[in-house]
Amino acid sequence: MAVYTDVSADDLDAFLADYDLGKLLSYKGIAEGVQNSNFLLHTEAGYFILTLYERLVAVEDLPFFVALMEHLAVRGINCPQPVRMRDGKTLGELCGRAAAIVTFLDGVWMRRVEARHCAAVGEALAKLHLAAADFSGHRANALAVPKLRPLFESCADRIDTIQHGMLDAIGAELDFLEGVWPRDLPQGVIHADLFPDNVFFLGEELTGLIDFYFACNDMLAYDVAICLNAWCFENDHSYNVTKGRALLQGYARVRPLTDGELSALPMLARGAALRFLATRVVDWLNVPPGALVRPKAPQEYFRKLRFHQHARSVHDYGIEARELA
Amino acid sequence: MAVYTDVSADDLDAFLADYDLGKLLSYKGIAEGVQNSNFLLHTEAGYFILTLYERLVAVEDLPFFVALMEHLAVRGINCPQPVRMRDGKTLGELCGRAAAIVTFLDGVWMRRVEARHCAAVGEALAKLHLAAADFSGHRANALAVPKLRPLFESCADRIDTIQHGMLDAIGAELDFLEGVWPRDLPQGVIHADLFPDNVFFLGEELTGLIDFYFACNDMLAYDVAICLNAWCFENDHSYNVTKGRALLQGYARVRPLTDGELSALPMLARGAALRFLATRVVDWLNVPPGALVRPKAPQEYFRKLRFHQHARSVHDYGIEARELA
Repeated sequence: MAVYTDVSADDLDAFLADYDLGKLLSYKGIAEGVQNSNFLLHTEAGYFILTLYERLVAVEDLPFFVALMEHLAVRGINCPQPVRMRDGKTLGELCGRAAAIVTFLDGVWMRRVEARHCAAVGEALAKLHLAAADFSGHRANALAVPKLRPLFESCADRIDTIQHGMLDAIGAELDFLEGVWPRDLPQGVIHADLFPDNVFFLGEELTGLIDFYFACNDMLAYDVAICLNAWCFENDHSYNVTKGRALLQGYARVRPLTDGELSALPMLARGAALRFLATRVVDWLNVPPGALVRPKAPQEYFRKLRFHQHARSVHDYGIEARELA
Repeated sequence: MAVYTDVSADDLDAFLADYDLGKLLSYKGIAEGVQNSNFLLHTEAGYFILTLYERLVAVEDLPFFVALMEHLAVRGINCPQPVRMRDGKTLGELCGRAAAIVTFLDGVWMRRVEARHCAAVGEALAKLHLAAADFSGHRANALAVPKLRPLFESCADRIDTIQHGMLDAIGAELDFLEGVWPRDLPQGVIHADLFPDNVFFLGEELTGLIDFYFACNDMLAYDVAICLNAWCFENDHSYNVTKGRALLQGYARVRPLTDGELSALPMLARGAALRFLATRVVDWLNVPPGALVRPKAPQEYFRKLRFHQHARSVHDYGIEARELA
């Protein structure tokens, strides 16, 4: 559920007065997303998405996100395009929150991922990386692997209540990754959260990417590693080599991976699993009383981490390095 | 939040194959309503609402609700109109639940009710009563006042944990209302849940009524009494005579109230307050562990009940009987 702030028609009318979208005809809160309040807006100009940025999102980051979406849309990436107010601004204020209107994208997200979806996602991710190459904005990755230790430390005394032995395992993994985490791989703007619910399809075709609110500058191959975690495991948390192969091939068709990226991939996948384990652990242990959102179980990423720890090379992800370079 | 059942694109494609709505372009769960799962559907034929009826709704009642909406829509009441499948059916099955597609209504519901909205609601309610007069379906009111006692008894031992003295007060009210509850007032199909979030406006104009899933046969004036409870109290639970006057006048302009209805109004309003107090008390005391929906506080209707207990006649609702007959 993702409507934390309810909006009155009067407030919304006043907000829309700064846009050239005609009269408000309807708006409905959308039960998707977890960070912000989203509404499907119908005005005389068509259908749009209205997002109210809740307090979890740093207001100073919003211009980066909005400018990135605009930059990508201009370059042919099918993503929500910020709608400008008459004075050219793309960010306003509504109900005491920063707010933006973006275009509505058709398409549905895949609840049942198949290898062909993974191939399409790999390709779309590479296109996104290329399209963002000349984007001038910069945002550090707040959840980069070197920044995960304080997150785990904030709830260290309760981590073993989730699963016995988890605290020690995480500590050892942090020690290892902090020592070997690469610094010389190709960098750029990454999506950093390209999970199935952020990718739209129509029939066989991938038609859109949404939710750029974790986008940041980091290693491009780390984004690939995030997608391996997000798309290529089954519901029982087993890794599917056919899906992994499809995703990596799809990516490399558009942007071949360097030797350094290829050999770092298992380690980047470990880092990505640890990053999602970190936020899941924190969310799991910090459910506010009366919360309306039930956090996702952390164990899933603990299992995925175990898989990556045993991977020796991209071979274990379903493909040979020579096929990707 | 009102998406209890998530639907995959494949399942939805299969469901839509029975309709003439073209291809699925998009669907989003809607964070409104509390009983069912609702999705805003975009197909090649336009925008629609897809409802999955969750287990709280008795499947045997669905044909009544759907036929009523169709009956009212044909008679010019702007309400969701069930979309027929190619074989003429309006109810199907999706993800193991009964499901229907209805037309999408533009309009926004009023978070800040003013007297002019109350006038419009009164008028729309009377039109609904007249339009339903020749509807052949019949559904007993499962929450009629004579049926409330077992609801309270199901959690009697915990009612005073909500507010000290509530149990005795409810018992006395049940004793009183069961003794005097009228049986000879004009009957018909009532909406029974016409709260602000079920009434759409565009500008000054009331443009639609939704959510007929409590509709049933009962006294028409009882529906008016429900609206007095739902529309004419302020956030501090004080009664607003200007709003009450507007609502009653609006109703009587379309369907004048009988003497019997007028003199019964304070009692009907007590019954209506007790009915919403009953479901709120039960919901409040029976929150399942891990529930995603926080129930509404019951005290609001305890306060409203107190107001109605002190009302002597329609005069106390802001108007004189001679103005309404």
